[in-house]
Amino acid sequence: MGSSFGRCFRLTTFGESHGRAVGAVVEGCPAGLELSERDVQAELDRRRPGQSAVTTRRAEEDRVEILSGVFEGRTTGAPIAMVVYNRSFNSAPYEVVRRVPRPGHADLSYRLKYGHWDYRGGGRASGRETIARVAGGAVAKRLLSLIGVEVLGHTLEIAGVRAGRVEVEHLRRAESTSVRCADPEAARLMEERILEAKSQGDSVGGVVEVVALNVPPGLGEPVFDKLDADIAKAMMSIGAVKGVEIGSGFACARMRGSEHNDAFYLDGGRVRCRSNNSGGVLGGISTGMPIVVRVAVKPTPSISREQESVDLEEMRGTSIRVEGMHDPCIVPRIVPVCEAMLALTLADHAIRAGVINPCRVHPL
Amino acid sequence: MGSSFGRCFRLTTFGESHGRAVGAVVEGCPAGLELSERDVQAELDRRRPGQSAVTTRRAEEDRVEILSGVFEGRTTGAPIAMVVYNRSFNSAPYEVVRRVPRPGHADLSYRLKYGHWDYRGGGRASGRETIARVAGGAVAKRLLSLIGVEVLGHTLEIAGVRAGRVEVEHLRRAESTSVRCADPEAARLMEERILEAKSQGDSVGGVVEVVALNVPPGLGEPVFDKLDADIAKAMMSIGAVKGVEIGSGFACARMRGSEHNDAFYLDGGRVRCRSNNSGGVLGGISTGMPIVVRVAVKPTPSISREQESVDLEEMRGTSIRVEGMHDPCIVPRIVPVCEAMLALTLADHAIRAGVINPCRVHPL
Amino acid sequence: MGSSFGRCFRLTTFGESHGRAVGAVVEGCPAGLELSERDVQAELDRRRPGQSAVTTRRAEEDRVEILSGVFEGRTTGAPIAMVVYNRSFNSAPYEVVRRVPRPGHADLSYRLKYGHWDYRGGGRASGRETIARVAGGAVAKRLLSLIGVEVLGHTLEIAGVRAGRVEVEHLRRAESTSVRCADPEAARLMEERILEAKSQGDSVGGVVEVVALNVPPGLGEPVFDKLDADIAKAMMSIGAVKGVEIGSGFACARMRGSEHNDAFYLDGGRVRCRSNNSGGVLGGISTGMPIVVRVAVKPTPSISREQESVDLEEMRGTSIRVEGMHDPCIVPRIVPVCEAMLALTLADHAIRAGVINPCRVHPL
Amino acid sequence: MGSSFGRCFRLTTFGESHGRAVGAVVEGCPAGLELSERDVQAELDRRRPGQSAVTTRRAEEDRVEILSGVFEGRTTGAPIAMVVYNRSFNSAPYEVVRRVPRPGHADLSYRLKYGHWDYRGGGRASGRETIARVAGGAVAKRLLSLIGVEVLGHTLEIAGVRAGRVEVEHLRRAESTSVRCADPEAARLMEERILEAKSQGDSVGGVVEVVALNVPPGLGEPVFDKLDADIAKAMMSIGAVKGVEIGSGFACARMRGSEHNDAFYLDGGRVRCRSNNSGGVLGGISTGMPIVVRVAVKPTPSISREQESVDLEEMRGTSIRVEGMHDPCIVPRIVPVCEAMLALTLADHAIRAGVINPCRVHPL
Repeated sequence: MGSSFGRCFRLTTFGESHGRAVGAVVEGCPAGLELSERDVQAELDRRRPGQSAVTTRRAEEDRVEILSGVFEGRTTGAPIAMVVYNRSFNSAPYEVVRRVPRPGHADLSYRLKYGHWDYRGGGRASGRETIARVAGGAVAKRLLSLIGVEVLGHTLEIAGVRAGRVEVEHLRRAESTSVRCADPEAARLMEERILEAKSQGDSVGGVVEVVALNVPPGLGEPVFDKLDADIAKAMMSIGAVKGVEIGSGFACARMRGSEHNDAFYLDGGRVRCRSNNSGGVLGGISTGMPIVVRVAVKPTPSISREQESVDLEEMRGTSIRVEGMHDPCIVPRIVPVCEAMLALTLADHAIRAGVINPCRVHPL
Repeated sequence: MGSSFGRCFRLTTFGESHGRAVGAVVEGCPAGLELSERDVQAELDRRRPGQSAVTTRRAEEDRVEILSGVFEGRTTGAPIAMVVYNRSFNSAPYEVVRRVPRPGHADLSYRLKYGHWDYRGGGRASGRETIARVAGGAVAKRLLSLIGVEVLGHTLEIAGVRAGRVEVEHLRRAESTSVRCADPEAARLMEERILEAKSQGDSVGGVVEVVALNVPPGLGEPVFDKLDADIAKAMMSIGAVKGVEIGSGFACARMRGSEHNDAFYLDGGRVRCRSNNSGGVLGGISTGMPIVVRVAVKPTPSISREQESVDLEEMRGTSIRVEGMHDPCIVPRIVPVCEAMLALTLADHAIRAGVINPCRVHPL
Repeated sequence: MGSSFGRCFRLTTFGESHGRAVGAVVEGCPAGLELSERDVQAELDRRRPGQSAVTTRRAEEDRVEILSGVFEGRTTGAPIAMVVYNRSFNSAPYEVVRRVPRPGHADLSYRLKYGHWDYRGGGRASGRETIARVAGGAVAKRLLSLIGVEVLGHTLEIAGVRAGRVEVEHLRRAESTSVRCADPEAARLMEERILEAKSQGDSVGGVVEVVALNVPPGLGEPVFDKLDADIAKAMMSIGAVKGVEIGSGFACARMRGSEHNDAFYLDGGRVRCRSNNSGGVLGGISTGMPIVVRVAVKPTPSISREQESVDLEEMRGTSIRVEGMHDPCIVPRIVPVCEAMLALTLADHAIRAGVINPCRVHPL
Repeated sequence: MGSSFGRCFRLTTFGESHGRAVGAVVEGCPAGLELSERDVQAELDRRRPGQSAVTTRRAEEDRVEILSGVFEGRTTGAPIAMVVYNRSFNSAPYEVVRRVPRPGHADLSYRLKYGHWDYRGGGRASGRETIARVAGGAVAKRLLSLIGVEVLGHTLEIAGVRAGRVEVEHLRRAESTSVRCADPEAARLMEERILEAKSQGDSVGGVVEVVALNVPPGLGEPVFDKLDADIAKAMMSIGAVKGVEIGSGFACARMRGSEHNDAFYLDGGRVRCRSNNSGGVLGGISTGMPIVVRVAVKPTPSISREQESVDLEEMRGTSIRVEGMHDPCIVPRIVPVCEAMLALTLADHAIRAGVINPCRVHPL
């Protein structure tokens, strides 16, 4: 279990890195939404490796096919199954993983839990599973666009280099840099640091920020299915993420209440906040202010240096060197995955709150 | 919806701050577990206000009654309903909230979502709802104790004062300080800072750390219901929490892969990690290392200073001053709530993983 | 687990026959619905024993208290907890059940599953649990009344006596007879048969029919959560029910397709069916025709005759005679329970289909 | 929503009759189970059309591919995705259905619910969707075989011809007849009646019985997720089913309690029942006796006779004649679908009850 996300708009993913295919089933998308393979492919292409010097050079074409749920270019309310066949991979370097778990990877915990598991290329725990998330997120984004919601992700920090303050309207610039950072100067430095680590057989981490604009008030459910709680789960379910914060986040710990509380004022008949420490959520329910989320991304665990591990067949200490072509920094490629997870969460809650009709995008 | 947490061990809470009662229903607790009202009361007493100078002076006795699911001192596998009647409260100061939302509180978002809602004392969004969480957590803790799991929370930081490094075996000391900090010197400083803020009609935030010891490997489900993902949701669902991190957390963003990966070694036939940057979770599945979680707690939004707000009946700007007795810092009282949420998550996943039998604590 | 019903409008029940209380938590009821304890009590009074010669003479007052979710006479969107304290009961006759299971009862299966269980008065498996269903159903009925849906149950057959055909508009007459049968002549015969069986220390079964009028088209979800599938589960979850049928039901097995298909025609711009073999559901989705459900109710297993059983402590054959005051026929009292279960199912699907707003009964 | 079944062992289906493919995702299957495409294909071949004179002559090859979740011939605990591509179909005869709904079919209700839907060949409501159920059921059957559970279906009645009493050990004979009836004489008569109806452009219905042997006691959860309640839902979710009964079923309505109660006796240390009116379930929990379920199957709604309907574009009465090759009786082909649904329900509850480990078939 555990491969489904969402209650009223639900994504189920399947597939392993070196298996026949990875795929997604989206349930709960209302009928009548225009959707094509092109829409989904566009998002997948943003996630694809081999886009620049700072990502892996593995060639993964990742062509999506929609198998169901779309008829005459529009959704039907039925489950939307999407599949991406795995084309070329080399499983040979992974034979050792069967007995020697890689530090920082899921090899050990899968082995302990399942006994028998597909260890090739990370198997089910591979980053390739996020293909299915991005495909599902593409559907969610299209659905959200009907109510004007936009989800934007960008790189805030890599290897200690922090982007300067960027206005929301300039966030789209991030897409044009190799590291998906909207501050060009920081982007240049980030790239330097990544290549430096790479040349040393090492990797670096960073921070991604995702923002949702024009989110209507009222999304989120007290008391456990708070919007921010479901966002936290969505983000932390991404393999490399070690932390999630909303609005002020960890900085709130050092603020005073008088400073942290966002004052209310009226702006053309709508209540707005002078600041956005809440990150667009009060009591777990959206207020209409932008949703602001940041996630901490750990340095890629696949590094070419020798590392201490154990041989689980012979039960003795040993060392392992992970071969293959790996991203020295996963942050830029994780940006579209974070966007997908936020979009999925918002689409689910928009339906749960009755803001989007569960049956058809154009209700009678 | 949204008032239930967990799939195979599920807590449902109900009740409002100034309503007749708050309560909890625990489903999925196997039969045969020794459980009494005393066990639950002990945890509730840790959460209760009025314990020291740094918490609210409101007197809330909070006596729990178990209504079902326990027979002859042991659980029966049937739902365990627990209720705490609300004894004394004064709703008068909240009349203004019906039209003027308090900054940092859920008044605005509940009004926008529901139209009609119980605004007295925070209603459903009140911290009193956490009584039900702590009650449910008490059941989870007893269940976990059968497999040796222990959940310990403590205050790591308040108002910028950070506790020094404390060995796990000394964490229990935290309970004896007014701020639940295991570092006595830091505890003294924290208390000072809280009282200083209080005297200025203000409030402060902090960071809570929760640790789970002796967690068996194999808890957590790929790929969305990862153990850390469910923990993140559990923690972020607590009203005042703005950030959650596991293991290295946000610090991972500035580490190298070679530094972040926890090396494996053998210790008496069990695989252990030299460091614990993973926080006890790899690929979303527990490894057997301690689970380490930290949450950022915002400064209490209820402050006695005048704050800018809006009158939603007359649709004009106004100001509001929140009356009543409020905690100048909620961190110490949120510690048992964090423990409860971690215990609930672990109990759910222990059953989901087959580590605890879903029907009876002593299987045939 | 297993004590919750519904996805978007969910009832959770708790409590045992001879425990402190039985109760219900209703999640997902939108805000703004007028609801009082009187509304719920009225339905409970229909279910209550001691109403006539054909029901048990046990005195059960069953006063409901609403603990949460209602403020100023209207729902708030928060969980509605309702509790009925158990007043007087005599557990002594049940001591033998601890070791000797009663044929036709759940004693054996609970013992095998849980080891430790509350066997007094049937415990969790007692018919008293249906108090919580009827309380939840009362909320569902009020909610459905907003969209004009009416749920009507009546007795179709008892002890082989079948009611003559009754027009829908006369079904309400059923309420005035001791057996809840709308055909007065059949009702008289049914009562005779019940009293005859009772005088012989025996019991009889029957058939209940429940009808829902004015159900809007579009309720129900392909392919597993069909409206009729969820109704079947709802009905079969009632303790004494051994069969469920929709529309033509089992009679369909002997019909030709040309006879069974309900022809469509237009009636003032709406599509209607010439017959209703479908029972108001096609492809699992309501069509706008009345929903028609029948359930088979087994004879009460509690009879005063001696029955063959086994002593599970001494592991030997024995016999048991069930003491106490029991209904010789449970059919009349099960009618409001069937209504409650149908109402709960329809309310859930009305929200799931977007026909009722999930947040507030009067959307903006 | 609505395309998933099960809580801890869950089947999700996707696909339309004339779309690109139909498929299934099975979540919650523990690791280590031997499983191949051959296993699944064998069950699909039993469901396939074109097997005899009494079924449709449409040629559907229905080759299954397993896309994920199986590695080196054994399951891994990850989702098992299976896909069957749709090869040849002729959608032309269905153009009329876009505006004129077929009586007895889902055309009308899908149109009313979704507005835009795939009406070709029944679309999502087509019997082809049951391919995915049978594929999922094949996995469930293999899993159940580990604990000795066997699921057997057979035709009890067609067109008024009822099979004579058949001993459980002879039920397997049913497979060798064209109508899947274990009573050869009745089988011959059933075939005659089907061909007679077919020659008249009509169709007939019947009754299927499914039995599960060696079911361990303890499956099923009080009070809503009773084993029989979940079975009722499972069966009623099959398109053509109008009624479900367990054990005595509707016959219970005319029995006395003294006759209906199954007496207990000891048989080699295990408690057994003298009769099986309970159908293997007491209080919603399995007792160890065989599970016995019967379902009423309506006559195929696709008949070649002219039928009254309405033109929904022009909003006027009209008639429709359904072309194409259809089963004059769906009963024989529905037998493996009923088996699949019972197997899925039992597998889910076996995991929920802790009888099968949720992670691995050979626990440590």
